[in-house]
Amino acid sequence: MQSTMTEESTDIHYPSEDAENIYRLAAELKMQERRIIDFSVSVNPLGVSKKVKADLRKHLKYLHNYPDPEAERLQKRLAQYFAIDPETILCGNGSTELLYLIPRVLNPAHVLIPAPTCPEYERACRMRSETRISYFELKEEDGFHLDANRFIDAMPEGGNSELNTPNTSSPCAMAFLCNPNNPTGRLLGRHEIVKIGDAARNRRCYLVVDEAFIDFCPDGSVIKDAAGNPFLIVLRSMSHFYSLAGLRIGYGIFPQHLVRRLRAHREPWTVVNSLAQRAALTALKDKGYRKETMVLMAEEKRFIEKHCRKLGIEFIPSAANYYLLKMRNAGEIARTLKKRGILVRDCTDVKGLGNPYLGIAVKSHRENAVLMRELAGILNNR
Amino acid sequence: MQSTMTEESTDIHYPSEDAENIYRLAAELKMQERRIIDFSVSVNPLGVSKKVKADLRKHLKYLHNYPDPEAERLQKRLAQYFAIDPETILCGNGSTELLYLIPRVLNPAHVLIPAPTCPEYERACRMRSETRISYFELKEEDGFHLDANRFIDAMPEGGNSELNTPNTSSPCAMAFLCNPNNPTGRLLGRHEIVKIGDAARNRRCYLVVDEAFIDFCPDGSVIKDAAGNPFLIVLRSMSHFYSLAGLRIGYGIFPQHLVRRLRAHREPWTVVNSLAQRAALTALKDKGYRKETMVLMAEEKRFIEKHCRKLGIEFIPSAANYYLLKMRNAGEIARTLKKRGILVRDCTDVKGLGNPYLGIAVKSHRENAVLMRELAGILNNR
Repeated sequence: MQSTMTEESTDIHYPSEDAENIYRLAAELKMQERRIIDFSVSVNPLGVSKKVKADLRKHLKYLHNYPDPEAERLQKRLAQYFAIDPETILCGNGSTELLYLIPRVLNPAHVLIPAPTCPEYERACRMRSETRISYFELKEEDGFHLDANRFIDAMPEGGNSELNTPNTSSPCAMAFLCNPNNPTGRLLGRHEIVKIGDAARNRRCYLVVDEAFIDFCPDGSVIKDAAGNPFLIVLRSMSHFYSLAGLRIGYGIFPQHLVRRLRAHREPWTVVNSLAQRAALTALKDKGYRKETMVLMAEEKRFIEKHCRKLGIEFIPSAANYYLLKMRNAGEIARTLKKRGILVRDCTDVKGLGNPYLGIAVKSHRENAVLMRELAGILNNR
Repeated sequence: MQSTMTEESTDIHYPSEDAENIYRLAAELKMQERRIIDFSVSVNPLGVSKKVKADLRKHLKYLHNYPDPEAERLQKRLAQYFAIDPETILCGNGSTELLYLIPRVLNPAHVLIPAPTCPEYERACRMRSETRISYFELKEEDGFHLDANRFIDAMPEGGNSELNTPNTSSPCAMAFLCNPNNPTGRLLGRHEIVKIGDAARNRRCYLVVDEAFIDFCPDGSVIKDAAGNPFLIVLRSMSHFYSLAGLRIGYGIFPQHLVRRLRAHREPWTVVNSLAQRAALTALKDKGYRKETMVLMAEEKRFIEKHCRKLGIEFIPSAANYYLLKMRNAGEIARTLKKRGILVRDCTDVKGLGNPYLGIAVKSHRENAVLMRELAGILNNR
């Protein structure tokens, strides 16, 4: 089940050299960016909530002020929203800032990462040459389901001194989980994650649960379980569900002994910009937006699944706002769609996926219909 | 003239633990943030340009898109604006991001920093425990003027291999200059900086010229001189002149051999948010705003200088949008003003200043008048 291969590491990486995005494609096709339909990025098709836009409009006149470096108001709002201690919350420039901060500060000697999953965990750990990475293989024949007991068995063990000497950079153990998983969309139930978290505490292994997409299936969140576990870290993003990808805002829930340590090691410039702080504050208050999103998602996921079945396209059942479609010539199809101004995620190279898959976001009905029509055309012309 | 003391370093720092800001003061005084007059931060009193605000309002609907990670359009606009090669430009989350990136990547063994100057250079260099820091003392009796020849004599010498092996992390030499200097406001002429840059090249010592405030006296900029010098780095901010502090946007001009190296070592999440990119693009086109700023600044600086003379307050002549006022009990005055909702910079602890000074920004006429009235009241009640 688990392959414990250790790979060579490097401190040099070229972040966006090969990444596809609307800006590059727009330049390539000589099209306006807004005419490109981007299924490669999974953000809420409702776009930014009207209330958030209205609030940002009002706030533009305060942009001469530096942002609150502590994002204190947002921290308090989040604490209220989840009924947790504000002192356990750190806001970041997207949850990705925090994702890179964690291994940088905790300096893990050994890390366990599922495969397939979000590639950022591996990249973040590879910034440190001392870190040994093991992969926990999720099997296609199990529908990429993660078996909690087997994951627990594979988790590395941390040293004794971790909690007693929180300010040292002594090596530790760490495991990452993405729930629901990216790019499969598979959700592990809250109790399963709590069980893994309990085992992580017993092994003194930090468990980082990335809940970037969990607002689409909020019952799975372990945010409220983090308080009782000094080895459980939960990361949340506002890019996807709240459609705020352009502003860079996310947050994390950390054991208290880590908060001060992480804060001390951030470079001082990494404050969250004022509009991102405002947008997040207002978004959290917008119940109507959340409800509308859930209704839209349910409808559009039904629509996509129905059409995939009709076209004979296999897909992984997803708890999130994206799907993996199993398609023999995924790479070729991605290239064909791209020429038509449609970006999808070509997952042929994703570690641990094995077979070729296309990754697609759930977008507005009009856009989903365009994609299904294009896919039908491509498949029927074969 | 120069004291070459080396200080102990540490990798832990608490960025904003003691920093005063409007958010803290508002909480302390139970006042609304916008009722606080903040002279401790030197941003353009015109606020964000109307054109920028109008453009941002239009752009709010695209916030679901991730930002262009390369900020390519802005890079090209900057290249046009300064008539320089776009490949030499890197945009950052404020110029401070780049300021921390430079020593992190170049790993200088020995660094020269003037005193007094912006404290960020020292903080950025202290993130690496291997770096030895020397200070170049600017003397009060010279009006804190920097003597180019003496600075050249004090600059450290870099190793031979720097240019030939740009991808190694071999130690190098580095010197920082802030022009106009923060917090003194003293400007060194362009030719003087170019002369120091030439000497830096001969010594294989990187010269980082921080031009965060040079838009207020643009003839002093060496941006166009950077192309010819592989050891000259120029940093620019859009927080101050363009009043965009809340959005986090700055840029740097780098020797080409450094650009790829710096890019490769940035953590992948450090993209500039979409609204900051838009704001910068539009701000650069707004000639009217620049002109209006220069007129306002000239008037208000005359007003402040006239009143200081009347009150018998000594000040350092400034090329920027701030002043150092020499006041025996600067700390006490700062505290008195604070109670009245007025923030000034208490410079009593600034390394190299010697005597106590108050740092004040040039703000709108109404605000400057309030400050002068308050200072008069405090001085006359003594």
